[in-house]
Amino acid sequence: MDNPIFTHRSIRKYKGEAIPSEVLRRVLEAGTRASNTGNMQVYSIIVTTDPALKEELSPAHFNQPMVRQAPALLTFCADIHRFSLWCEQRGARPEYDNFLWYVNAAIDAMLAAQNVMLEAEANGLGICVLGTTTYMADKITETLKLPRGVIPVTSIVMGYPDEAPPLTDRLPLEAVVHADTYHDYTPERIDALWAEREASEETKNLLAINDLTNLARIFTEKRYPGRDNIAFSKAYFETLKRQGFWND
Amino acid sequence: MDNPIFTHRSIRKYKGEAIPSEVLRRVLEAGTRASNTGNMQVYSIIVTTDPALKEELSPAHFNQPMVRQAPALLTFCADIHRFSLWCEQRGARPEYDNFLWYVNAAIDAMLAAQNVMLEAEANGLGICVLGTTTYMADKITETLKLPRGVIPVTSIVMGYPDEAPPLTDRLPLEAVVHADTYHDYTPERIDALWAEREASEETKNLLAINDLTNLARIFTEKRYPGRDNIAFSKAYFETLKRQGFWND
Repeated sequence: MDNPIFTHRSIRKYKGEAIPSEVLRRVLEAGTRASNTGNMQVYSIIVTTDPALKEELSPAHFNQPMVRQAPALLTFCADIHRFSLWCEQRGARPEYDNFLWYVNAAIDAMLAAQNVMLEAEANGLGICVLGTTTYMADKITETLKLPRGVIPVTSIVMGYPDEAPPLTDRLPLEAVVHADTYHDYTPERIDALWAEREASEETKNLLAINDLTNLARIFTEKRYPGRDNIAFSKAYFETLKRQGFWND
Repeated sequence: MDNPIFTHRSIRKYKGEAIPSEVLRRVLEAGTRASNTGNMQVYSIIVTTDPALKEELSPAHFNQPMVRQAPALLTFCADIHRFSLWCEQRGARPEYDNFLWYVNAAIDAMLAAQNVMLEAEANGLGICVLGTTTYMADKITETLKLPRGVIPVTSIVMGYPDEAPPLTDRLPLEAVVHADTYHDYTPERIDALWAEREASEETKNLLAINDLTNLARIFTEKRYPGRDNIAFSKAYFETLKRQGFWND
């Protein structure tokens, strides 16, 4: 078996086949083996397989077809609620309703998520991360009936792949790794790091389709424009406060 | 080779031996293969091996001895700076200086971190996550010379293990997994989920050492008391604003 770390591809087309319960269980167990804050496991994983619920969640994920098509949608949540309930039940006073614990709990959720994704792939499943989770977290919170103390951080779809896409390119390793301290980038280095991607056939096609002069503008004008970033920032921060991760 | 997902232990004692550069490179490459937001790779990994710098960072990590002892300290940062530089250099207008992109970039950083940890373990290395990273992020930011647009999210120490601790217990899988929607916990269920841990020898020893009546109080009164949570929340949020991840 190849190491799934080095063969990961995002899968956007799935077969109808359900995930056998013993496979799903092993994949979820993998999530729980990840490092987590103080072994408090301040996260929850909501595994949605009910077609009506996936349908209801679909608009929150911008109607990406894979949300309906994949047999399972997993929502990874920061969760201080369960641990706080236990504390209260033992006469201890939990004070995790603050920003630090949003970050701690989100870290726990993400480390578990990556283990789940890798073990899924090791078992022949495909996955795709849905970056849309933070955009409409309020709608997801409502549909998944998340109580105060729980907020979605990311979601993945999971199922048996019905496509075999190539490996995605990455920036050279030197782009993201710094020795000892941060070494800022000169304009020449920025050019060099993006050179291969900018010269690729994929980029040429994207520019033709979008009628834009360079790849950076596809990101700033089409994919992640400023007005959306600001609107989604406000909305997610409101959800974070409403769900009890803020303490003025 | 066992699947490192299921054999992970946090290592707190390390041999002096350095990590061979080809091993370190493979481990870091593993990080870059993780899913990331729009393939923008909005994270950086600072690999600190210089003993003087590790010494300087040690107080920010509460002087945990492994920070000095392990040959490498890796700081995973949310980084919108590099991508924004590239956009500006192409005449595109980056608008990632907001909370949404803190969350997106932190997610990228954490998914990469988990891949790095697993690939390290697959190569005979040990790791331990340092939850202290968010506590004194301002000090770390200064020492690592992080520019605006870059903030630490988590750190790990890495090196060859000089101990072989047992696997850590986890709550039953049912504690963290919910079918379809969130199912809130009854008091009876909370009792059942924590029963095994509360009855363990480890818990009995902890209670004796701390002179406390139950395990929950060790968390709320000793490990993560409210006053610390609130102070660290404020400090990290200030760092987040200062580093350019906030837009009122």
